[in-house]
Amino acid sequence: MNTIQAKPAIIAIFGATGDLTKRKLMPALYNLFLDKGLPPKFAIIGVARDGEEASFRSYMQDAMAQFSRRGAVESNKWDEFVSRVSFVSGEFTDANTFTKLADKIKKLETEMGEPATNVFYLSTPPFIFATIADGLGAAGLSSDPTRQRIVIEKPFGRDYDSAEALNSELLKSFEEKQIYRIDHYLGKETVQNILAFRFANALYEPVWNRRYVDHVQITVAEDVGVEKRGSYYETSGALRDMVQNHLLQIMSMVAMEPLVSFDADEVRNKKVDVLRAVRPFTKMNPHDYSVRGQYGAGMENGQPALGYRQEEGVDPQSTTETFVALKLFLDNWRWQDVPFYLRTGKRMARKYSQIVIVFRPVPHLMFANDVPDLLEPNRLIINIQPEEGIILKFQAKEPGTGMRLSTVSMGFDYNQAFHAQNREAYETLIQEVVWGDTTLFMRDDQERAAWTIIEPLLDAWESRPANTFPNYSAGSWGPEVSDILLARDGRSWHNPMMYQSG
Amino acid sequence: MNTIQAKPAIIAIFGATGDLTKRKLMPALYNLFLDKGLPPKFAIIGVARDGEEASFRSYMQDAMAQFSRRGAVESNKWDEFVSRVSFVSGEFTDANTFTKLADKIKKLETEMGEPATNVFYLSTPPFIFATIADGLGAAGLSSDPTRQRIVIEKPFGRDYDSAEALNSELLKSFEEKQIYRIDHYLGKETVQNILAFRFANALYEPVWNRRYVDHVQITVAEDVGVEKRGSYYETSGALRDMVQNHLLQIMSMVAMEPLVSFDADEVRNKKVDVLRAVRPFTKMNPHDYSVRGQYGAGMENGQPALGYRQEEGVDPQSTTETFVALKLFLDNWRWQDVPFYLRTGKRMARKYSQIVIVFRPVPHLMFANDVPDLLEPNRLIINIQPEEGIILKFQAKEPGTGMRLSTVSMGFDYNQAFHAQNREAYETLIQEVVWGDTTLFMRDDQERAAWTIIEPLLDAWESRPANTFPNYSAGSWGPEVSDILLARDGRSWHNPMMYQSG
Repeated sequence: MNTIQAKPAIIAIFGATGDLTKRKLMPALYNLFLDKGLPPKFAIIGVARDGEEASFRSYMQDAMAQFSRRGAVESNKWDEFVSRVSFVSGEFTDANTFTKLADKIKKLETEMGEPATNVFYLSTPPFIFATIADGLGAAGLSSDPTRQRIVIEKPFGRDYDSAEALNSELLKSFEEKQIYRIDHYLGKETVQNILAFRFANALYEPVWNRRYVDHVQITVAEDVGVEKRGSYYETSGALRDMVQNHLLQIMSMVAMEPLVSFDADEVRNKKVDVLRAVRPFTKMNPHDYSVRGQYGAGMENGQPALGYRQEEGVDPQSTTETFVALKLFLDNWRWQDVPFYLRTGKRMARKYSQIVIVFRPVPHLMFANDVPDLLEPNRLIINIQPEEGIILKFQAKEPGTGMRLSTVSMGFDYNQAFHAQNREAYETLIQEVVWGDTTLFMRDDQERAAWTIIEPLLDAWESRPANTFPNYSAGSWGPEVSDILLARDGRSWHNPMMYQSG
Repeated sequence: MNTIQAKPAIIAIFGATGDLTKRKLMPALYNLFLDKGLPPKFAIIGVARDGEEASFRSYMQDAMAQFSRRGAVESNKWDEFVSRVSFVSGEFTDANTFTKLADKIKKLETEMGEPATNVFYLSTPPFIFATIADGLGAAGLSSDPTRQRIVIEKPFGRDYDSAEALNSELLKSFEEKQIYRIDHYLGKETVQNILAFRFANALYEPVWNRRYVDHVQITVAEDVGVEKRGSYYETSGALRDMVQNHLLQIMSMVAMEPLVSFDADEVRNKKVDVLRAVRPFTKMNPHDYSVRGQYGAGMENGQPALGYRQEEGVDPQSTTETFVALKLFLDNWRWQDVPFYLRTGKRMARKYSQIVIVFRPVPHLMFANDVPDLLEPNRLIINIQPEEGIILKFQAKEPGTGMRLSTVSMGFDYNQAFHAQNREAYETLIQEVVWGDTTLFMRDDQERAAWTIIEPLLDAWESRPANTFPNYSAGSWGPEVSDILLARDGRSWHNPMMYQSG
């Protein structure tokens, strides 16, 4: 890896004065720098309509105290870091901006003594993605696929056709392998650990199939509302904003077949296989396999919280969903008839992302006479956030005479095990871009396959707008229909305890 | 259970002034009393050659402070308990002793208003077992199989024939179902939990076989030497003292087939099935599948420790083994070709009993390029003492870019989970006798099957006495040949860390 890492890197951020840059990108870059995760020679260029170098640098320094996991900067380290940060101002629609950027890059590379890896990070609204890609192409900044890369933030389109159109635009200047579509969930350690857990251990793969698994639950619950993103959210909704990307990607990793090698295209091939196996909503009544919700006023973390329709930028009659629950089937040998229940929502009881593998009950319970209560089946719980770890719930004998069973847990805590302050997903992802590893990024066919799953449901919902909204209170676990979706199958959601893991 | 528990019980202990009574039996009875584990109406009768009630009672009170898990007694509770304790003195060879005992029991039952469960606990040297059983029979104390029970401490014979002979003697007065042969290991919670773990959980049984298990290790390590038992131990050795009973019983529970019901005879049938499947030493050269050792001088817990030959009551040229390691195979469908490595020894590095299920490696390691060190296979560790719990060792991804694997643990601690001070094995076992549940006790065919396994090895060793003794130092993990036994198969013992579990 050292030879790759040693190559100089220049990272240009479009939308450098925006929210994401200050909250995530610059803290990630600074922490990577401190952890020696960047090449010895590197430079960062902020690109935005307004601003200049000095004010950009001090704006970023201020942001660090608030958003870096290490808190306020140490001035000697920061000074060294910020000396590599420069700024280019200009409209993204103006060819001149890209000429200035190209000149700046050429000058930096001359100083570095060799051509650098060029990373163009588009931290901008999506409508301008294509324009920037065109500008980069025209300025000769996309012509070397071995070292020039473009990073795109979600949303990557708002349906199949718009994703396809955006892709065509990007492909005018960049090749597919130069395009890094970010899904920050894939940068999380625990999400990546799913593959290690499944394929570096001989113990679980034998039971990881329809013969032993009863069903799978994937929950990505947010406690926040739409915050200041109301007007954007009105055009999106939870299905586009969360399911099409994060939840389907997590499901792919839980359900995928074993890999031949841990190679970027092999990983992504096997993920696409899962998405292609999802039974299409066109083959059934989508309303029987999906539930949508919208939060009303309630309490969140002990404070009164507005309903969605009262949020800034939101239509008071809005039928945009802030909650989705789906029941999906995979039509393949491994998973036939095993439901995958996915849910995500805003303003839920607790910020919590987890995967729960619920195993079938024992085929014969020889202790039947001694079981006083319902016997819980084995559950394997993979916690993604806020805790990162794995918990196995199983039955043990209670102390004392006779054989009384009781559900107990054994657990593994990621941070505790590695005595490491967990790095942020963005640190991992930026480093992967610099190194040129596409494993954790979305390939175009993944995007397309995900839209193919989602689109019939989007259409079905649009043709029959919800008339029960708001149908859950801020601070709850979502609408009652979400519980009914599972209860119909004799199952229930695994909701974490409010104040502990598991 | 309440109706059974409500029946009065009278427990007579033969050898009441001996070591086991004061260290284990009386503390167990007192703690059972405190925990309401004895029937409301109960009485305890100490039987011994010399002594009388008052001194016996105060002797036991003194013992409690030293040996009860609760420490010194609270006087009001103890007074209530000790009012139920009486004493009968007499030679066990004298019919008169049994007449006195029978009279005492009759008197107590009259006071109790109904016939009681009679438990005769033989806490005596084994040569007197048959004599006591005869005496009880002659005094009419064995004639009611529904309520009269005899408890036998190990050793139950010293080979197949003597076990068989002892059995015939007992059967003159008692039926098999009245005979409770104690193996105190079977009273330990974790040992019983093996069955719950295996058969109340759907997750492990699918991999609990030759397809997924590479081998099994069972270690029962003692840190103490032979203490004051040197002259007895000279007639026994580790194979008779530990393997024939404890280790083979634990192996039975690890290897047994699923049960139809948790019924005493069903449990014991399935255990006997395992013992009968053990490939006999007569079919191979026993010296290739066994290792023996004897400790020399060394250090134990920071203190100098004598060698076995220097211990009190031991022949200075003794060839008695204080350590055994065996490699056993089970000739059945589930376990063919999977070695079960058993070892036990005195004066080992640490007091530690555990079962380790070592799984096969993953069939294909897709992360091969990123693995810097040897990859440990999955291990399931069942700790029996001093910690009681279960630990699973598996591979997880190290935090950071790339896929580097690292062995991590998830664990379950029995005491922590149930917030209970663990009760002693003897409490469980005594309660089971009072309740009339034979599940945890050795049936005659179990004893015989165990001797059938061990005897050819005893003979082989006797015909070729060890000439390398002493061959391990007190405070070590046994002789080097023990490591070689596994190293020949490309394996190694899982030795616990000195100062932590796992």
